[in-house]
Amino acid sequence: MITLASDFGTPYPAAMKGVILQRTDARLVDVAHDFPRQDVRAAAFWLREVLPYYPPATHLVVVDPGVGTDRDALVVRAGEHVLVGPDNGVLRPVAPRLASDGALEAYVVDETEIGSVVPASTGWTPETTDGPASNTFHGRDVFAPTAADVHETGLEDLDSLESLSPVDVEATVDCELPAATVDGDRATGEVLVVDDFGNAITNVPGSFLEGREQVDVGGETVPVGDTFAAVSVGERLVTVGSHSYVELDVNQGRGDEAFGLEVGDGVVLEGT
Amino acid sequence: MITLASDFGTPYPAAMKGVILQRTDARLVDVAHDFPRQDVRAAAFWLREVLPYYPPATHLVVVDPGVGTDRDALVVRAGEHVLVGPDNGVLRPVAPRLASDGALEAYVVDETEIGSVVPASTGWTPETTDGPASNTFHGRDVFAPTAADVHETGLEDLDSLESLSPVDVEATVDCELPAATVDGDRATGEVLVVDDFGNAITNVPGSFLEGREQVDVGGETVPVGDTFAAVSVGERLVTVGSHSYVELDVNQGRGDEAFGLEVGDGVVLEGT
Amino acid sequence: MITLASDFGTPYPAAMKGVILQRTDARLVDVAHDFPRQDVRAAAFWLREVLPYYPPATHLVVVDPGVGTDRDALVVRAGEHVLVGPDNGVLRPVAPRLASDGALEAYVVDETEIGSVVPASTGWTPETTDGPASNTFHGRDVFAPTAADVHETGLEDLDSLESLSPVDVEATVDCELPAATVDGDRATGEVLVVDDFGNAITNVPGSFLEGREQVDVGGETVPVGDTFAAVSVGERLVTVGSHSYVELDVNQGRGDEAFGLEVGDGVVLEGT
Repeated sequence: MITLASDFGTPYPAAMKGVILQRTDARLVDVAHDFPRQDVRAAAFWLREVLPYYPPATHLVVVDPGVGTDRDALVVRAGEHVLVGPDNGVLRPVAPRLASDGALEAYVVDETEIGSVVPASTGWTPETTDGPASNTFHGRDVFAPTAADVHETGLEDLDSLESLSPVDVEATVDCELPAATVDGDRATGEVLVVDDFGNAITNVPGSFLEGREQVDVGGETVPVGDTFAAVSVGERLVTVGSHSYVELDVNQGRGDEAFGLEVGDGVVLEGT
Repeated sequence: MITLASDFGTPYPAAMKGVILQRTDARLVDVAHDFPRQDVRAAAFWLREVLPYYPPATHLVVVDPGVGTDRDALVVRAGEHVLVGPDNGVLRPVAPRLASDGALEAYVVDETEIGSVVPASTGWTPETTDGPASNTFHGRDVFAPTAADVHETGLEDLDSLESLSPVDVEATVDCELPAATVDGDRATGEVLVVDDFGNAITNVPGSFLEGREQVDVGGETVPVGDTFAAVSVGERLVTVGSHSYVELDVNQGRGDEAFGLEVGDGVVLEGT
Repeated sequence: MITLASDFGTPYPAAMKGVILQRTDARLVDVAHDFPRQDVRAAAFWLREVLPYYPPATHLVVVDPGVGTDRDALVVRAGEHVLVGPDNGVLRPVAPRLASDGALEAYVVDETEIGSVVPASTGWTPETTDGPASNTFHGRDVFAPTAADVHETGLEDLDSLESLSPVDVEATVDCELPAATVDGDRATGEVLVVDDFGNAITNVPGSFLEGREQVDVGGETVPVGDTFAAVSVGERLVTVGSHSYVELDVNQGRGDEAFGLEVGDGVVLEGT
């Protein structure tokens, strides 16, 4: 199984799938292709929250503002899972949740060993190629064929792939998601992401809300609810989301707008 | 085969897929994940129009404004199909189209019998869990594993699932789509949904247009056409959509805007 | 394998998939369902850029402003690939890239030979059907079942399908993408499409940029870069995209807005 995640919209992911399907008949599952553009931190957050619900798989991740620069292409083995994507931190936050024993192995991809991504049978080749890969679409030319090759090769034999060279995991880029500070009745954090419902997801651990019926947010008292329906339609609430963090929400509405918050904004919650 | 429909956007459906794929290798097919948010009626309409074109399958439906409240999670067997989703009416309108003999069987899901949705192999468990399911993401924690279990168990053996208890179908919530009134040359209905093209789909049966070359809509005469191309590009027309209802459309444009109509607005059509 | 491409949004593609899956258990892969509405040229461009990366497959394409008119439904065999869609030109630009020897074979689809798209097992039939197909949804009623039948029949036996009649490829509609004019240091072209990143993709061949460090665009000098990261975040650049054409881009921003360009706008590039 190969999962795919990117900020590509359409139809670029379809080109990646074509390349993969030349090399393997693995099941393909889309995680998302509308991650916030070139926002490594947001993608890292969502991958950390979604991929641990998968059975062992190869996960192809392309959120890559540095495409074409000298940033490396990485393969990271985490337990029975393998992550494939750019060395910009996006692969790191999810890895410890995929590896029961904390053991990670990393490899750098040698683009010159990947081989052609165009099927020979059609007789067509792209007009301009200055090398083994385009400078602007490594998803298609580097990461997709690597994910397919990793899947076909299998976890135990990654060392046998000509295109992979071991590298120290600690030498790869990490994307640390900021931690909130909880001090008694006061939690200071920030909005990590806003989901498609408009829920403003913070980095404050859900445990902060235990035993509280209301909290102050920006000087106003907001009820704590177990469910959206704990408040009337259109009303604000503070709740623990499915990822165990405090969310600022509106029942059947958008929390980000009602609280006036965007990704990266600071949030202070005070117990009352 | 398991189909998936929700109002989740991304990437939440991908978490549901991960949970499902831990339990089954069924084919997964997305129906839509951008149904109008928490609009049970719109989802019920689209499911009624789309699912009857499928071969026998398990259909996972999560449009669930009451998530975390005491509304039940349901499994409804309809002929060779099975529907899984919340007891809020969304599953009911499509059911008679899936069951040739009208025989439906319903079950309530016992969340405590579903088991873990996190793979044991990774060693990771979510930080905060007050019970068998989160309060805000039953798609992942209740409906997805149930759909997988139903698929694996098979139609004939649903009674053997510990998590299911039979319930009278008539005791479940129905979502009745409003009917139009046709009185000779006058049809009074409403806009049920607006599709992605901007076509305003009403509940007036297409048969009302038989033999008519034009109708009055809101005091203006509009041509009846068999095809969008029956009128010039940008012109309005009234036609019978692919679901057999009267649509108010614009050739290569948006009917909702040209007619000034939104979902739920009343529509009066008069033959001339 | 059957790929699907359309301008349908959701959930209409799901109805096509249901019809296909009644007839075949082929793998289904979505190319895109958000092509610009009824824009045959844009769809033709994207298909030409994406489908050549696929292994042999059946490609279902429905961008069909003439649905319900007397335009034909086509099947075009191109090498080991088969294209299925309306005779409006959308299938033609990609075909030569799929057929190594340039040999194409075309067939017209007889809608009366397709058979029912509703499963008999449910006992349900749509209320209004004036014939073998709706007038507004040939994707579901004509193209989807044809793609499934073509896949099941196989390349070598297309002539055996009752629903197909051979037709001269040259008698089908072509959609010629406009060519740019390159005259020494001056290239005159137009914006073919704008992708989801906002990159304005022109029809000027990438080779025009070889050896140039900057070009004049609309009177302003813009750097030529190999990668987005060749300029600072938010800055404009001219580069060769993954499809080998000149793109007008912004590093981590929208090129279309920064250059004030829309699809179809003329573009003049001058070497300096």
